[in-house]
Amino acid sequence: MSDDVIRRIKEKGTLVDDVLDMYLPIVSPVELYKASRHLVDAGGKRLRPATLILAAEMCGAKAEDVLPAAVAVEFVHNFTLIHDDIMDKDDLRRGLAAVHVIWEEPGAILAGDTLYSKAFEILADCKGDPKRLVDVFRILSKTCTEICEGQWMDIDFESRTEVSESEYITMVEKKTSVLYGASAMIGGILAGASEEEAQALWNFGTYTGIGFQIFDDVLDLITPEAVLGKVRGSDIMEGKRTIIAIHAKEHGVDIPYFGCGDATTAQIEEALQVLDKAGSIEYANKKAVEYVENGKVQLDMFNDSDAKKTLLELADYMISRTH
Amino acid sequence: MSDDVIRRIKEKGTLVDDVLDMYLPIVSPVELYKASRHLVDAGGKRLRPATLILAAEMCGAKAEDVLPAAVAVEFVHNFTLIHDDIMDKDDLRRGLAAVHVIWEEPGAILAGDTLYSKAFEILADCKGDPKRLVDVFRILSKTCTEICEGQWMDIDFESRTEVSESEYITMVEKKTSVLYGASAMIGGILAGASEEEAQALWNFGTYTGIGFQIFDDVLDLITPEAVLGKVRGSDIMEGKRTIIAIHAKEHGVDIPYFGCGDATTAQIEEALQVLDKAGSIEYANKKAVEYVENGKVQLDMFNDSDAKKTLLELADYMISRTH
Repeated sequence: MSDDVIRRIKEKGTLVDDVLDMYLPIVSPVELYKASRHLVDAGGKRLRPATLILAAEMCGAKAEDVLPAAVAVEFVHNFTLIHDDIMDKDDLRRGLAAVHVIWEEPGAILAGDTLYSKAFEILADCKGDPKRLVDVFRILSKTCTEICEGQWMDIDFESRTEVSESEYITMVEKKTSVLYGASAMIGGILAGASEEEAQALWNFGTYTGIGFQIFDDVLDLITPEAVLGKVRGSDIMEGKRTIIAIHAKEHGVDIPYFGCGDATTAQIEEALQVLDKAGSIEYANKKAVEYVENGKVQLDMFNDSDAKKTLLELADYMISRTH
Repeated sequence: MSDDVIRRIKEKGTLVDDVLDMYLPIVSPVELYKASRHLVDAGGKRLRPATLILAAEMCGAKAEDVLPAAVAVEFVHNFTLIHDDIMDKDDLRRGLAAVHVIWEEPGAILAGDTLYSKAFEILADCKGDPKRLVDVFRILSKTCTEICEGQWMDIDFESRTEVSESEYITMVEKKTSVLYGASAMIGGILAGASEEEAQALWNFGTYTGIGFQIFDDVLDLITPEAVLGKVRGSDIMEGKRTIIAIHAKEHGVDIPYFGCGDATTAQIEEALQVLDKAGSIEYANKKAVEYVENGKVQLDMFNDSDAKKTLLELADYMISRTH
């Protein structure tokens, strides 16, 4: 993927950076707001706001008109990261100490809760037809509920010996991809998309979001720690039932150091070679590509435009990125 | 306060009980929803939904028209209880084991998050002018942010040696009373209240809510554990800077067993006698009454009605209840 494409995607997503101080100022109690901003300021790829803004532009709106909603979905994403890191006891995120490491667990619970409510508070700032805005509130809140369900399933899977691929896909859909679906749909709705268009945008987001997460599971294995910004192979060590682990198990392959809690880089390398030989990594990669392709065809109903082109490129980027 | 008055207040608040299965059904993942329902099903006084419904009725709406909003504020309240109990390490609530005791911390974090998003999801179900509904979303989300700020302040106070009365009042306002203010205001707005009426309802809720919390601090000291549904004197043992503790400190009185972490009933009794002698409990009681009276006069602008009468009685009940 060319640097130019990545620049175009980044340009949209980072529009939220310019308004962070306006929408989430560091006010009293200062430490609460510092904790809330910690991960947001650390960056991230801003793919959800980029999806929202591009969907809105494709449907005829301007980026500035949907910027509050773009900030809202980024805050929801960061809220889930903060709470997930507490639950999963992950101490490193985006190359930084997790929020609960710096501000302890009560501080991190509250920082997450604050981002959660701020997301809805900011959403109310969107201009336009209030009826559409109520729809947007309904979509985002329902999405948040599904994210909770997905995270619950993810935790539950760890204590189970058997998880099927379809259960894994349902978990990923709820935990990760619905927020992409919501981002695309909300962008469309705020721009006045028809019901059919809004549904297509939802499908685009959820399908590509599933592809994104499957590819994320692949990256967790193959990306060097310095690039990943967190411990590499953590899914293996935590015994996470990713599609890769499920594929290996279904083919009678035992993954070395699976669920061992801790492993050296050499041991992770060993696990990686076993998974590579079993074809599990290739299988996951193929699945990710399939989901992204299914997502992209959803946009066939929209007229060609720069925004549509970039949205399709964004879908490809989800499964070609290096971190 | 007569049984008849309590019955009238309860009648409004418990309207939410009839729709709980509709708005928060126990669906998959079942344990997540059981955890979310745990405290909601344990009851509580439902004073926030009662406030919302009575304010709406006073402004000419019917209870059934604002029922989703009444459920929403009750869910927000329960979400804060679940997360606060994790942060404060309180293991007992409403006579039951806290959510984190039964479902562990990750389960309780998610159960709280689910109630949070469900509150907003349900709110979108309110009928009527979408413009008003957007205002309601704005109010509730802003309120949730303030609740987080209040809880942060509350935790912060524990590690400080000096907390002034005005700092305590600000904390209580954010942590507890704004949700009463929001409940009253939302009830009014959904019923078509004017800006001036909505503001008066906000003031009514926040003033009486401050009175409620000050009285709650008194009850924590004087109510037997079986009635309170949690360990008595927990504020003393945790070293909480309530208005009672602040008054005592300002008058040079050392509270026995303050912040000791654990104490017998006899030791709590000893602390109580010291506080009683210092006039700190009486002072807090007087303050609670003042706030409630200031709240009640806010309703002067509304015409007399059964709903207004009950709302005023509810304000009195806040500082005359036994638990």
